[in-house]
Amino acid sequence: MEFAELIKTPRVDNVVLHRPFYPPVEGTLCLTGHHLILSSRQDNTEELWLLHSNIDAIDKRFVGPLGTIIIKCKDFRIIQLDIPGMEECLNIASSIEISEWRLSYVNKEFAVCPSYPPAVIVPKAVDDEALRKVATFRHGGRFPVLSYYHKKNGMVIMRSGQPLTGTNGRRCKEDEKLINATLRAGKRGYIIDTRPLNVAQQARAKGGGFEQEAHYPQWRRIHKSIERYHILQESLIKLVESCNDQTQNMDRWLSKLEASNWLTHIKEILTTACLAAQCLDREGASILVHGTEGTDSTLQVTSLAQIILEPRSRTIRGFEALIEREWLQAGHPFQQRCAQSAYCNSKQKWEAPVFLLFLDCVWQILRQFPCSFEFNENFLIMLFEHAYASQFGTFLGNNESERCKLKLQQKTMSLWSWVNRPSELSKFTNPLFEANNLVIWPSVAPQSLQLWEGIFLRWNRSSKYLDEAYEEMVNIIEYNKELQAKVNLLRRQLAELETEDGVQESP
Amino acid sequence: MEFAELIKTPRVDNVVLHRPFYPPVEGTLCLTGHHLILSSRQDNTEELWLLHSNIDAIDKRFVGPLGTIIIKCKDFRIIQLDIPGMEECLNIASSIEISEWRLSYVNKEFAVCPSYPPAVIVPKAVDDEALRKVATFRHGGRFPVLSYYHKKNGMVIMRSGQPLTGTNGRRCKEDEKLINATLRAGKRGYIIDTRPLNVAQQARAKGGGFEQEAHYPQWRRIHKSIERYHILQESLIKLVESCNDQTQNMDRWLSKLEASNWLTHIKEILTTACLAAQCLDREGASILVHGTEGTDSTLQVTSLAQIILEPRSRTIRGFEALIEREWLQAGHPFQQRCAQSAYCNSKQKWEAPVFLLFLDCVWQILRQFPCSFEFNENFLIMLFEHAYASQFGTFLGNNESERCKLKLQQKTMSLWSWVNRPSELSKFTNPLFEANNLVIWPSVAPQSLQLWEGIFLRWNRSSKYLDEAYEEMVNIIEYNKELQAKVNLLRRQLAELETEDGVQESP
Repeated sequence: MEFAELIKTPRVDNVVLHRPFYPPVEGTLCLTGHHLILSSRQDNTEELWLLHSNIDAIDKRFVGPLGTIIIKCKDFRIIQLDIPGMEECLNIASSIEISEWRLSYVNKEFAVCPSYPPAVIVPKAVDDEALRKVATFRHGGRFPVLSYYHKKNGMVIMRSGQPLTGTNGRRCKEDEKLINATLRAGKRGYIIDTRPLNVAQQARAKGGGFEQEAHYPQWRRIHKSIERYHILQESLIKLVESCNDQTQNMDRWLSKLEASNWLTHIKEILTTACLAAQCLDREGASILVHGTEGTDSTLQVTSLAQIILEPRSRTIRGFEALIEREWLQAGHPFQQRCAQSAYCNSKQKWEAPVFLLFLDCVWQILRQFPCSFEFNENFLIMLFEHAYASQFGTFLGNNESERCKLKLQQKTMSLWSWVNRPSELSKFTNPLFEANNLVIWPSVAPQSLQLWEGIFLRWNRSSKYLDEAYEEMVNIIEYNKELQAKVNLLRRQLAELETEDGVQESP
Repeated sequence: MEFAELIKTPRVDNVVLHRPFYPPVEGTLCLTGHHLILSSRQDNTEELWLLHSNIDAIDKRFVGPLGTIIIKCKDFRIIQLDIPGMEECLNIASSIEISEWRLSYVNKEFAVCPSYPPAVIVPKAVDDEALRKVATFRHGGRFPVLSYYHKKNGMVIMRSGQPLTGTNGRRCKEDEKLINATLRAGKRGYIIDTRPLNVAQQARAKGGGFEQEAHYPQWRRIHKSIERYHILQESLIKLVESCNDQTQNMDRWLSKLEASNWLTHIKEILTTACLAAQCLDREGASILVHGTEGTDSTLQVTSLAQIILEPRSRTIRGFEALIEREWLQAGHPFQQRCAQSAYCNSKQKWEAPVFLLFLDCVWQILRQFPCSFEFNENFLIMLFEHAYASQFGTFLGNNESERCKLKLQQKTMSLWSWVNRPSELSKFTNPLFEANNLVIWPSVAPQSLQLWEGIFLRWNRSSKYLDEAYEEMVNIIEYNKELQAKVNLLRRQLAELETEDGVQESP
């Protein structure tokens, strides 16, 4: 994840700077990754440079369309910026606020957490030494890290493994400090545990557990129930078996579809993702998501919440970045989970269609918002295929550490480098895409969720006529472009001829 | 139904006429509703006029691309026509063959069959007197009439009410003659009874029954099971109730969907319609369809078979004609069936969503063949709405007789006259339509059939984003037309300017 991606660096003109004992100064505000720079309009020599790390606290105020940001610095300086336009003001405020986070390389040798990448984003207030301690208190060393920063209001999604409280109710001061450091004063957050309460309680017997609210007083814990492992794998096996059932009996088909529980899993995952997104966007609260390991249901929730909240994750490049960040770098064990699929008899307990369920959930949202995604269904199907069997190195191994040891970056080609060639991209581009900068709220009513025919019925019936309809649409849009080019060319020719006429007439 | 619609009247050049003892004559063949006319090329004065009703038998033969039709006349004349092109030959042959049928006005006072229109198409070999006798042997006076003529091979769909055999095995020679008259020598036909065998057997106790194969030796009877009346109404009530269920439980939803049996009914109806279409198109056999009255499941089957077989019925005008012919004129009791819908407590035994099931089946086919229909889903939804509540006269009354008595044609406006205005039509036109002249075979596997969200979930969730996608597609196609017009205009201007240049240069 690029840290710079999190920082909006707009340039805003007509900003007024107020300092005690000084006259107001009007100028232009620029933000870089490290500095806030104000250049005076009257006197080009006067420039105020402020390190983000010098900022102790910031306040926002609005009077009509005029926004005011008050920045209180660690060196006791206080400055006030009047910014015309509420949106610009919010953008700047959140860009400054994100400086509460930092890139940490504490895991650069994969020693602190074997399933994490070398670089992670953590609260600025917590140093690497504390992170090492927190890692010993979290399942698999997965200390809480930043997953998503909601620019609109500065709220965040963090993810981690379960806390190792055990039956004795073990505590970790550094863990408590880290988690609280992500909340502003007086703010509350939500811990979304993807397990039901009883499962979380049972986990204590094996050394796991959950956060005691007494020790995390600003946080409220919510338990959801997303299934894991063999339950999901059995669900997939049952679903595929019923899709292949040729008895032509409607009752039997619907009973088997129900008994597979696949759509129930889809519903549970989407519901939890919506809850996560609601916490950020509607409640204005930050969240921490984890289940047991933090490598499966946790990633389903954090990545789907981003699909809902963040328009960029609905573009092709943005979605690729999301999968890179929230699945590959985040340590989803692809090799274990996708070793076998629905037809294998030797069932291993680590096989589970966790990633396929995520893709299915994305498809459900795509189906409900057909213009809001830059990619089409074929893109999701292609990713499913490559997760299970691929000539590229991208989905090999179980985490970044394994991929490094296998030298996959040197030895194999990346799926993205192939997919991003224009000839491939054209297959995956949604012709109806119109950038939608809003949060999109999918319906999770059972009536709204459907079987993903493109995956589960693709070998059972010809898709010839559906493909034709799709191609027809693509052709129409291509033809549009050709016609537009023709119009431009003809206009140019016409203009040239008219000019020639003018030249001929003048002498 | 227009009789003329059944007759293809192509004009074919380069036809060679052979007659015994005469030299061959080359000329042009024209077909009218009554005559076959051959004009000689060498000598414009020579014209052969042949009344269709003079034709006793015809034979077809093919040698490579050359087709030969041998026409044997009732006056013992035999002529042979060599026709270049197999398709032209088949078209002409079937156009001649349809002359085995005639328009009968035996029911012009609605006295023979109160639920039939004044004009019906029946075999030429059967006179009105015989029709009157057959009417007394068929439920509700519904003697067998022509529903559809398959131009490709001259096979037909007929429909009727059940035969009134009763427990004594009553027979009707005229009925047997009528039904056999529709088959060419040596050909077999299928009687599709929409009831299971035991239901058909039980019907004898109430005076009804089914055709004994001994008395209809060229016909094979097939029993299917399409549900009727209150079973369908209860199915609709259960389905709508489960769609409105807000308990957000996936298992409950799927159980209730299954328990409603709605999709089972869809499957049964579509399966029977496919069977009917297969008999005609694949087996080259004619069929007779009936259940009990011949006003419900019978019409579902005959009209859906036409959707499958006949490209014209997939156009807007063709579908309107289909509904006019196979539902309104054919005497589906709309007033009784559509008096109430899913929310009414006072359940009457004659209420049933027979027409809605038909529309749903059309939607299922439309979904599988998105480019093959000139109309879109909104057209079907509009028809559903008007069948249940309408400011137009079209769907009032139970049959043509009632509509005549009520003087609806004088007192009300027709739905079609409103729908066919360009401003309305544009809402119902499928932007992806590309005329598909083939028979389309829908999949009836339970996995391929889906809940019609546009009808059953339309009030339960916003369709804003789906509507937007549809409008986007329509806009793109509109913009295409504008661009094309612009290209044409600019080309014209360019050509004019270039001509002017030429004129200026020449002197």
